Amino acid sequence: MTDFTKTRSLFHLPAGVVYLDGNSLGPLPKAAVDRVQRMMQDEWGEMLISAWNRADWVNQPSRVGDRIARLIGAAPGTVVMGDTLTIKVYQALASALEMNPERRVIVSDSGNFPSDLYTAQGLIESLGRGYELRLCAPQAVEDHLSEEVAVLLLTEVDYKTGRLHDMKSLTAKAHARGIVTVWDLAHSAGALPVQLDEAGADFAVGCSYKYLNSGPGGPAFIYVAPALVDTVRPALAGWLGHEDPFAFDLDYRPGKGIERMRVGTPPVLQLTALEASLDIWDLVDMNDVREKSIELSDLFIELVEASCPDLSLASPRAGRQRGSQVSFRFEQGYAAMQALIERGVIGDYRAPDIMRFGFTPLYIDANDVRKAAATIEQVMTGRLWDNEEYRQRSTVT
Amino acid sequence: MTDFTKTRSLFHLPAGVVYLDGNSLGPLPKAAVDRVQRMMQDEWGEMLISAWNRADWVNQPSRVGDRIARLIGAAPGTVVMGDTLTIKVYQALASALEMNPERRVIVSDSGNFPSDLYTAQGLIESLGRGYELRLCAPQAVEDHLSEEVAVLLLTEVDYKTGRLHDMKSLTAKAHARGIVTVWDLAHSAGALPVQLDEAGADFAVGCSYKYLNSGPGGPAFIYVAPALVDTVRPALAGWLGHEDPFAFDLDYRPGKGIERMRVGTPPVLQLTALEASLDIWDLVDMNDVREKSIELSDLFIELVEASCPDLSLASPRAGRQRGSQVSFRFEQGYAAMQALIERGVIGDYRAPDIMRFGFTPLYIDANDVRKAAATIEQVMTGRLWDNEEYRQRSTVT
Repeated sequence: MTDFTKTRSLFHLPAGVVYLDGNSLGPLPKAAVDRVQRMMQDEWGEMLISAWNRADWVNQPSRVGDRIARLIGAAPGTVVMGDTLTIKVYQALASALEMNPERRVIVSDSGNFPSDLYTAQGLIESLGRGYELRLCAPQAVEDHLSEEVAVLLLTEVDYKTGRLHDMKSLTAKAHARGIVTVWDLAHSAGALPVQLDEAGADFAVGCSYKYLNSGPGGPAFIYVAPALVDTVRPALAGWLGHEDPFAFDLDYRPGKGIERMRVGTPPVLQLTALEASLDIWDLVDMNDVREKSIELSDLFIELVEASCPDLSLASPRAGRQRGSQVSFRFEQGYAAMQALIERGVIGDYRAPDIMRFGFTPLYIDANDVRKAAATIEQVMTGRLWDNEEYRQRSTVT
Repeated sequence: MTDFTKTRSLFHLPAGVVYLDGNSLGPLPKAAVDRVQRMMQDEWGEMLISAWNRADWVNQPSRVGDRIARLIGAAPGTVVMGDTLTIKVYQALASALEMNPERRVIVSDSGNFPSDLYTAQGLIESLGRGYELRLCAPQAVEDHLSEEVAVLLLTEVDYKTGRLHDMKSLTAKAHARGIVTVWDLAHSAGALPVQLDEAGADFAVGCSYKYLNSGPGGPAFIYVAPALVDTVRPALAGWLGHEDPFAFDLDYRPGKGIERMRVGTPPVLQLTALEASLDIWDLVDMNDVREKSIELSDLFIELVEASCPDLSLASPRAGRQRGSQVSFRFEQGYAAMQALIERGVIGDYRAPDIMRFGFTPLYIDANDVRKAAATIEQVMTGRLWDNEEYRQRSTVT
């Protein structure tokens, strides 16, 4: 049984704050500060260039990838870190399309994170040759899995509503039509048990700065199914994905297995911060996280609905059909979220009317949920959101 | 006049080491450790998600880009940070090819860094449609600028030999044939005065962890010429390059100017380390760096040639035709470099026979050069490289 009191003690949480935005940026693992400082002084500072070997920076992307693999139901040697999530979507999609060279359609849903759609749009404009991105409603994905579809590109958990796709079922249906699947785990990794190998997913990608607490701009990861990882062609062919990077051959030859999905020099500072967070994740059973997450979010829904009739639930009511967030719709959601943040309850807002709250059992407990619900009640019943100051939108919300 | 005694005092240099590998990984700016620690504690730790606005993380890539712009002869608003150099090469190349839609040839030279070539190979395999990467000898680039060429992709300073291309002349000749240019400044930025605007370069890319001392895996930069930056189509279309990222539109619309070349979430830890280094660079006149670099490398060549007849100069003899490194060929170069490193002189080796030494006036002076040359003499005349231990190659050399 995971000791969540212990894990909570390992994060820095500012005084007076209930942080329900770990689905956007996870908080600071206390050990990360020293860890990064030691890496900078003892490795970068003292070992200089030799740290690539002596501190084994060169293998950090796959070493860290293996630790994340455990959290997403992937075998060792199938996950590697690098770049940003958008780049990893591009990489997976470009490689996946080639596995269906006769087909020209990418299916995704309108609840997908826009950057995934932008990436697909950018790629197919480069490719020409009649490629098409076809969007459908999240509930209608199944109906769009025809035999002209090359790739199904989905984010498992909807970033706005928290609605959870059935990865296993959709992957099986896609495969039955010869469709390659690319799953974005941005709101899944560290949020709920993902079973990539069991679901038969072909490609998966995700980021580390949300539930995995690697800090702002922490690197992304990419997974390639064991059956594909030795044959997939890396569309983003970089030297650290080469079979022998330090031979400096003029021709690209893909590296062994998942190593081929590496591209350029890994961000060692960011990866080191992530390692500090993964030390906490090592103490955690993902099934315990799931149970606790549903308990907390069910409680939150119950309390908020009982006291705030103006907020309407935008997330699935059934816990098993959600990721680890709860969203409410409210027309003045932006202003209401500012009022909450000023009162120490931090969630976020997504246009046009979504108030989003993330539940992260590693450092959030039932007391936090009650405190947050009480503050929401105060803001809503007192119409505290009705304040000119809260209506000024800033760049990032 | 730049005060190089002052700049030297701002770097951490391990005792007993002469570090001639700042062209591969720059040393630690002393202030970077505290700077990153403060960012982690005060911004990530205390401000959490709100730091994107309150600490202005969201604009860090262009804010830092503008500081690098000064060092490479670029106007403010034409340089932005992100990703790795390999990704930036891909991004520039994919966008550049579209500016010459009727042409199918990319010209590069065999001295280009392999990752740039791999990237081009990877991209044209995705594009199909008969694209071709044509390699020529570095001296023969001019002869290959025919009207079937879409893009000229060159690294200004050869990573092995230090040979410097004439950017202004080659760009003019390329333009005369309607060819778009992509310049890789990996070994130029911070090494010598680059004049991108004056040379009329179309695209340029570079990395920050070599001469710019941002630490392992620090982000890359991309430059787009003022005349193109408002019209270029970003082939890597990511949400932070969108005109309005937080509107979460389903369709991509490129952001204003250089912002469109952003892709995903920026690596704030790495960018913060880079900011500490740029505080040092703010004290520096790039012309002084160039003069000093040539003085140091000329002295190095003179001393080494006088005492080590077995080493043959692989770099141009004329300082103005080199970047900021000096390379010697020696068949047992790997072993000899290991012998040097063990004696505190750190350069590096590039297959098959190149011993490479970087000269970085910010923290290397004539005493270092004399010490290094004396150690090289000792290793060479004493045949100290002839030792079984030094022949075992490790992954990174």
